[in-house]
Amino acid sequence: MQRITVIAANPWQHTKRSPVIFMQNLQCPISIQQYPTILMAHGGGGRLMHQLIDKLIMSAFSNPHLDVRHDSTVLNISSPQIAFTTDSYVIQPLFFPGGDIGSLAVHGTVNDLAMSGARPQYISCAFILEEGLETQTLWRVVQSMRQAADAAGVQIVTGDTKVVEKGKGDGLFINTAGIGVISHALRIAPASVQPGDAVILSGDLGRHGIAIMASRQGLEFQTTIQSDSAPVAGPVLALIDAGIEIHCLRDLTRGGLASALNEIAEVAQVNIDIDEIAIPVNEQVQGACEILGFDPLHVANEGRFIVFVPAKQADRAVAVLQQHPVSADARVIGQVNEVSIAPVTLKSRIGTRRIMDMLSGEQLPRIC
Amino acid sequence: MQRITVIAANPWQHTKRSPVIFMQNLQCPISIQQYPTILMAHGGGGRLMHQLIDKLIMSAFSNPHLDVRHDSTVLNISSPQIAFTTDSYVIQPLFFPGGDIGSLAVHGTVNDLAMSGARPQYISCAFILEEGLETQTLWRVVQSMRQAADAAGVQIVTGDTKVVEKGKGDGLFINTAGIGVISHALRIAPASVQPGDAVILSGDLGRHGIAIMASRQGLEFQTTIQSDSAPVAGPVLALIDAGIEIHCLRDLTRGGLASALNEIAEVAQVNIDIDEIAIPVNEQVQGACEILGFDPLHVANEGRFIVFVPAKQADRAVAVLQQHPVSADARVIGQVNEVSIAPVTLKSRIGTRRIMDMLSGEQLPRIC
Repeated sequence: MQRITVIAANPWQHTKRSPVIFMQNLQCPISIQQYPTILMAHGGGGRLMHQLIDKLIMSAFSNPHLDVRHDSTVLNISSPQIAFTTDSYVIQPLFFPGGDIGSLAVHGTVNDLAMSGARPQYISCAFILEEGLETQTLWRVVQSMRQAADAAGVQIVTGDTKVVEKGKGDGLFINTAGIGVISHALRIAPASVQPGDAVILSGDLGRHGIAIMASRQGLEFQTTIQSDSAPVAGPVLALIDAGIEIHCLRDLTRGGLASALNEIAEVAQVNIDIDEIAIPVNEQVQGACEILGFDPLHVANEGRFIVFVPAKQADRAVAVLQQHPVSADARVIGQVNEVSIAPVTLKSRIGTRRIMDMLSGEQLPRIC
Repeated sequence: MQRITVIAANPWQHTKRSPVIFMQNLQCPISIQQYPTILMAHGGGGRLMHQLIDKLIMSAFSNPHLDVRHDSTVLNISSPQIAFTTDSYVIQPLFFPGGDIGSLAVHGTVNDLAMSGARPQYISCAFILEEGLETQTLWRVVQSMRQAADAAGVQIVTGDTKVVEKGKGDGLFINTAGIGVISHALRIAPASVQPGDAVILSGDLGRHGIAIMASRQGLEFQTTIQSDSAPVAGPVLALIDAGIEIHCLRDLTRGGLASALNEIAEVAQVNIDIDEIAIPVNEQVQGACEILGFDPLHVANEGRFIVFVPAKQADRAVAVLQQHPVSADARVIGQVNEVSIAPVTLKSRIGTRRIMDMLSGEQLPRIC
């Protein structure tokens, strides 16, 4: 059984901006003595809910949009084209090596916007709190969200807070929706993928899923693996600025690389052929996958994506990506062909070719 | 104890467009024999999740934006100003007289957009499903959402589905975020409210909260009361088209009229004085409130709003509102004064004046 200790690491290593704008670990602005945990009344629309929102949430998120305190916020948009997305986050545990549910809820949504080639600009934040959640836990999460939003260059402009009875939730769920501004004329979508495209992977696979797995109680292995959770809009926008004709982008979350490739191949009606030897997998991730019987190609990531570009632009695209820490290990891992026996095929390390199928059922529940 | 039977009513009576576009009660597109309930794997990112999304959710929601099947959707926006909002819905029971969690999740969010004077255009839809939820229940809810979206004139353009273990959720939570287009130059916000404004209420109070209460198990009273859940953008946009100088709009959800008025008075630093006799309350709602010890001014509504306009425009604004079924009972209920002893005061039926405070704790949990 592998047994390794945790190495301290900076979870912000992948962001260019240091999250110094908002200092974490300030004292909780609600009296922990008076309200050590969340009560049903914190979601009731009355005085306690307003106190929670004003003191705890607004003190972390405060900005001119939120401060208007209206049912919806009014935004000025600099382009007639925007990207819009949403994700709920139900991850357990709430805090894990390399991140927490708050930073994940920011990264996941800004990354979905980036996958349309948009510059993430505004996000919403809706909490579903379980009665009995420690107030201090919520405070840690909102601080983390503010830090992650600052680092990703987005503002949290509107929100909602609901409370459900103990046993009807699981501590804390977060939904974020996001708006990004599009200032390119590319059609970045699965349907734009075509034979002759190169497939570029932005970095090593599987760290998020394995970090979550290793941090769950009752597991008998430990690793130093940190989640790869990070915002990836920077390198994507750099590709666009460099004039790379991006056909499709996809982040490799639930279902991992295998599901992403199968989804795209199905929509585009092509074959995607991948070279297993080209796919970087951290040694500890590989070891953990072997122990657990997982395939790293199915494991979830939260800071990894693939890019489809015309083959002749692949080298230049890789060079652009490698200039950004979050995609420093970018490389070509395969190419797109006319439709063949299977949507996605894999040339294995020993040279044989096999079908790379989508994950069938559930591998790791609640990893995002 | 009051005991009344339920009268059948058309929950769509408040919408101008009949929801005939999508036929409800089609057979569930997923085999109920094979998958009678939601499994953890339906959220795992693999084949089962794709089947659930493709067959069940997409068959109800399908539109060109969703059909692109990308991480975020690209929208063309006709105005440089948009409104953006989000709400999660955790209501119990999922189905209630006059609506369900699906229609509510559409109405609540389009109404929040309308409260900025925006034309609701796009919404997102994120489900948090509890393992064991009946597949048929989800199918009913997505059909209801599609109907409500059609009736409100919005498209569901992006979404997400997560599954949590049995006992870690409560059947079904929904988050919707919304985008609306603003084509007016008004500054509709609490801070715009000023002395001399008239306060207009769009209709009777308390039906949503009491309908939910009455439909909960274990309660010993029955009513024919239907929720007022309905989209209200129509009358709001009509006010703008009529050139009414709207200072503020607010829908009367959690916390009811009392909380809405207190929030606005606090931000605007004014006194709002309300005439109790002018506030319409359905006789059964009044009776139920008396039995339960509730104040209708604190009870939640899902199709009611207040408008602040200059007093000289009040009559014309009321006339415009009364042309729409959802606000046919609109009337002036009070006025805004310079700040006084209390943010909100109420002239009671017997002529005395009292402070109208915000709800202190929890009145009806999980009514939205």
